[in-house]
Amino acid sequence: MAERIFGHIPNIIEGDVFENRIELSHNKVHRPTQAGISGSQKEGADSIVLSGGYEDDQDLGDIIIYTGHGGRDLNTKKQVTHQILSDKNLALAINCQNGLPVRVIRGANHKSIFSPEFGYRYDGLYNVVNYWKIKGKAGYDVWLFRLEKAETSIHKFEVKEDSPNYLKATRTTTTQQRIDRDYNLTIRIKEIYDFRCQVCNTKIFTNAGFYAEAAHIKPLGEPHNGPDTLDNLLCLCPNHHVMFDYGGFAIDEDFSLIDLDGKLNIKPEHEINREFVRYHREHFTI
Amino acid sequence: MAERIFGHIPNIIEGDVFENRIELSHNKVHRPTQAGISGSQKEGADSIVLSGGYEDDQDLGDIIIYTGHGGRDLNTKKQVTHQILSDKNLALAINCQNGLPVRVIRGANHKSIFSPEFGYRYDGLYNVVNYWKIKGKAGYDVWLFRLEKAETSIHKFEVKEDSPNYLKATRTTTTQQRIDRDYNLTIRIKEIYDFRCQVCNTKIFTNAGFYAEAAHIKPLGEPHNGPDTLDNLLCLCPNHHVMFDYGGFAIDEDFSLIDLDGKLNIKPEHEINREFVRYHREHFTI
Repeated sequence: MAERIFGHIPNIIEGDVFENRIELSHNKVHRPTQAGISGSQKEGADSIVLSGGYEDDQDLGDIIIYTGHGGRDLNTKKQVTHQILSDKNLALAINCQNGLPVRVIRGANHKSIFSPEFGYRYDGLYNVVNYWKIKGKAGYDVWLFRLEKAETSIHKFEVKEDSPNYLKATRTTTTQQRIDRDYNLTIRIKEIYDFRCQVCNTKIFTNAGFYAEAAHIKPLGEPHNGPDTLDNLLCLCPNHHVMFDYGGFAIDEDFSLIDLDGKLNIKPEHEINREFVRYHREHFTI
Repeated sequence: MAERIFGHIPNIIEGDVFENRIELSHNKVHRPTQAGISGSQKEGADSIVLSGGYEDDQDLGDIIIYTGHGGRDLNTKKQVTHQILSDKNLALAINCQNGLPVRVIRGANHKSIFSPEFGYRYDGLYNVVNYWKIKGKAGYDVWLFRLEKAETSIHKFEVKEDSPNYLKATRTTTTQQRIDRDYNLTIRIKEIYDFRCQVCNTKIFTNAGFYAEAAHIKPLGEPHNGPDTLDNLLCLCPNHHVMFDYGGFAIDEDFSLIDLDGKLNIKPEHEINREFVRYHREHFTI
């Protein structure tokens, strides 16, 4: 089976419309030709298709409340048993916990003002920001997932010639900033350390399994421009991630900890670049 | 002295222009009539005025790289010693760690294409998302703060009549969603517990002092609509905050922990509403 691709598919842009599910699949935007969720409970979900629609779904455009999978009678479509947080539902929870985006495709038969008139439209990346269960109308548990548009909008200012001088700068246009992260790396670093923090060895858990954070040593983005590579990542618990980002501790040349006792736990298959550790030390400690 | 107000000032809206610093002060948008930063290292910073401008400042509109305070010769304006993370600089770091927004005002003499032509314009709330130090041109430490527009933009879709049917929904207008949180409560809950986690008693630290998180028991916002009140807040370390939000543990009627050993630590001055604890238990555990 082909590797699961998280994030945008090369050469496919937001707004591209595909005639049918076969075309969607051929273009790798959404691989399965029947299932609405593409994903596994081990890896997470890489794409979903909104079509038909559950009554609990709410589509607000940039925010989607998505109803989980399972527990329905195939013929009547009525909820006949509890949904559980496993399989495709757990896949979406895994996205939430790992910051993995999901591609969203809206079908023409999706009941929403945001649906295309025709075919299936690729609507870009969404983050799964939360999930919870409710008692559905028939009295059974139903899981809901809150999806939010992943890419931040950058506002640009435009001068309106007929404005009074002191109001000349007003907000008018919006462009999008694409986030290009290698999501497989965040999975890889947690795999190497089996979700244990490299500082305190803690392994925390949630209702979706074990949880850890992939922390960049030299931050991504302007003005730091650290690379998105394994030698610039650490596997940390949330506590040590906060402390690291805000200079509560740093890492010395020999990987012993500064302002904390002990030494960073480093596995042989994880080579850390000392240049990035130095950058962190020089820029984030007092 | 009047209480420091974080967030918007009632009846003042983004884009309001004030003639001078006295007017800004009278309207409580920015209290000090001389200083660029209004704040203290204990409470954080409630507002900043961008005017004149340091050479290291970068104003990108919704993102501002703001140069810290201190170490300059008053006459030559040249950096003559290190800036340190204390006083007004520490105030901005405290904002970062506590999620406190800062009001940003741009003055006409601020060197930026986003400056007003006249007076001082209130440009809304920004979050301090990160801070770090660099070696300035003269070889001395300078602290930089990354500010980002705090309020999320919600895109609305508008139908363009001349579009082909399947492309009718295109993004054209942008509106703003105001976040109305009581920032004083997040400070208060941490004060009550002296930054110790109510689950594990841990007190973590960063380069800006002790750190804890104010966690809502019943989440704010749609569809949960939990209230922003002290009886719906917990003081947690980041680890237990993640675990709580994603159902790794819950809290029973008698405040003993479910799926973790022990009991929630609760101070007499902090009354927790059992209704919210029940809501969390019913919606976030498997």
